Amino acid sequence: MSAVIDTASALALNAYCARCIDNDELEAWTQLFTEQCEYRVTTADNHAQGMEASLIYADSRAMLNDRVLSLRTANVYEKQRYRHLVGLPVLLGETQRGQHSETPFLVVRVMRGGETMIFATGRYLDELVIDGTDTLRLASRVVVCDSHNTDTLLAIPL
Amino acid sequence: MSAVIDTASALALNAYCARCIDNDELEAWTQLFTEQCEYRVTTADNHAQGMEASLIYADSRAMLNDRVLSLRTANVYEKQRYRHLVGLPVLLGETQRGQHSETPFLVVRVMRGGETMIFATGRYLDELVIDGTDTLRLASRVVVCDSHNTDTLLAIPL
Amino acid sequence: MSAVIDTASALALNAYCARCIDNDELEAWTQLFTEQCEYRVTTADNHAQGMEASLIYADSRAMLNDRVLSLRTANVYEKQRYRHLVGLPVLLGETQRGQHSETPFLVVRVMRGGETMIFATGRYLDELVIDGTDTLRLASRVVVCDSHNTDTLLAIPL
Repeated sequence: MSAVIDTASALALNAYCARCIDNDELEAWTQLFTEQCEYRVTTADNHAQGMEASLIYADSRAMLNDRVLSLRTANVYEKQRYRHLVGLPVLLGETQRGQHSETPFLVVRVMRGGETMIFATGRYLDELVIDGTDTLRLASRVVVCDSHNTDTLLAIPL
Repeated sequence: MSAVIDTASALALNAYCARCIDNDELEAWTQLFTEQCEYRVTTADNHAQGMEASLIYADSRAMLNDRVLSLRTANVYEKQRYRHLVGLPVLLGETQRGQHSETPFLVVRVMRGGETMIFATGRYLDELVIDGTDTLRLASRVVVCDSHNTDTLLAIPL
Repeated sequence: MSAVIDTASALALNAYCARCIDNDELEAWTQLFTEQCEYRVTTADNHAQGMEASLIYADSRAMLNDRVLSLRTANVYEKQRYRHLVGLPVLLGETQRGQHSETPFLVVRVMRGGETMIFATGRYLDELVIDGTDTLRLASRVVVCDSHNTDTLLAIPL
């Protein structure tokens, strides 16, 4: 991780973030957020209408850790696999704390039987900050799914 | 936008370009082309055979603006949504005006009902130039679709 | 190609590598490997269990060249088309010879009739090295497919 917020460091953070999820290292994933943070999953329609209703919501890293812990205990069954393809970030301007960025994504789901399908597409609306002296973290990530049909029981983060 | 043509600036231009289309900011999209430009959508088979026939053709930014304007007036119905995943550009060498580059892409279409499918895949064959004093723009983009089945009534640019 | 191993040079190597395969320049693709190299295609399940069984295996560039040559002579029929979308590399640390990196990928197959489907997803586990004085090459690439259903007769490299 770099101590500057630019396309290269945003790109590296996104790459590491997707890898944590796909490799089932969710405890490492939560470390990419600031202690006080926002993480929401919503749909494009809700987002366009300014509706706050979210499929998933957390306002702290502790809440994300809780969520991961419950995934660890609940999911005794063998899980399907996910593959994130994360596009290129566009930096959108400075905030009081850091920078806004927007990044498209596509997630593929691979079932135990091998069947492969597009699970979700959308964009990450992020606020990136330098946390402490030199760690780039997500102060906010709003995951805007293109489809309103994305499985609301989704077990893993997007 | 940067005033040099390298992988980083090509990548940033591609990211911004895809965002304009997916966020329905088509007026901003046309600004990424030089005033005199080429924009064509063709198929891999046609391209391999050197055929000039194109599904979409424009030879100036004004013509692209016209196309966008007609989309704005014609499409009173609620549109489906598209998501571009743009890969990494490969710089292919200098031209008299700038640089050739080639970039793979995948476009997903999300229907109003939520159904998600691969709409198109292919590659962008671009000529990138520094326009004026310091703006990176597309002097030419030939969109080569892998499939000959790509919907020729396609409403939005690829 | 650059003489340093960093995110930018790994990204450029990956982009060029995918382009060689999709543009059917397989002879150029083999040149991206060191003379003594490892190239394996396996599944996530096999990989997780530490099984060495591979769908494709080569331990030298000469063996990769042989494979390409046999593809050239065997495939007299018109081939389907593939499109690689390669994600962002994560550098994982130094090795004795270079660096480990991990990169997600998605491959789409386009049939002659135009039908388009997801062919494979997974990740590349690479060892990148500086070969000779200044050429970045793959000393090892293990292609870990997410699905165990990936067509084992696969004609082209992943």
